Amino acid sequence: MDPSVKKIVRIGVPLGDCYAMGPGKADLLDAIQETGSISAAGRKLGMSYRRAWLLVDEMNQCFRTPLVEAHLGGVGGGGAKVTDLGLEAVRRYRELQEQAWTAVRRPFHDYLGLLKPE
Amino acid sequence: MDPSVKKIVRIGVPLGDCYAMGPGKADLLDAIQETGSISAAGRKLGMSYRRAWLLVDEMNQCFRTPLVEAHLGGVGGGGAKVTDLGLEAVRRYRELQEQAWTAVRRPFHDYLGLLKPE
Repeated sequence: MDPSVKKIVRIGVPLGDCYAMGPGKADLLDAIQETGSISAAGRKLGMSYRRAWLLVDEMNQCFRTPLVEAHLGGVGGGGAKVTDLGLEAVRRYRELQEQAWTAVRRPFHDYLGLLKPE
Repeated sequence: MDPSVKKIVRIGVPLGDCYAMGPGKADLLDAIQETGSISAAGRKLGMSYRRAWLLVDEMNQCFRTPLVEAHLGGVGGGGAKVTDLGLEAVRRYRELQEQAWTAVRRPFHDYLGLLKPE
């Protein structure tokens, strides 16, 4: 996905008072999938371990089944895995962002005509 | 506009390192238009006068001409007015939000099926 899309169109998925999914959570899932660890994913995104854990916990509470499974220590220090539902939740979230962006790409470009030239 | 749209789809209009327009700035312009005053508009939205002024200043710097004209004191204590360009900037921003929302309304509803029932 064009990275500027994430900057311009942000879609939140509220559930009551919680946020099930949003740009930060989607990036976190991608990073967990890539690094196999919640703490490494948090470091990659410049967030504390505590913050990363809270976001994972919020997602796991909101969806029908957990998006991330964490395994405790042992040799190698444990790790975390994005579940099938987690992969689907990110993929479909990215699709929503793309669909929104496709719809506004042209009028957004026109809107920029109201601004001072950079 | 359906208020939930603003909560779910947020569109930012970046200009270099600044943000020309976003949900908070659009609400601020509406409130200035309604109250005729930057400080009253800030109070209505629960933001400090300083914060409201900084947002107005950022918008005024980003667009071709100012979106808000402030008048100093005198009898009645001065006030502020949203310019024609300001009205257009808000109206077209709301249109972008509506267009994005229209595009994702159905897939967004499907996405909610991944969540726990509320």
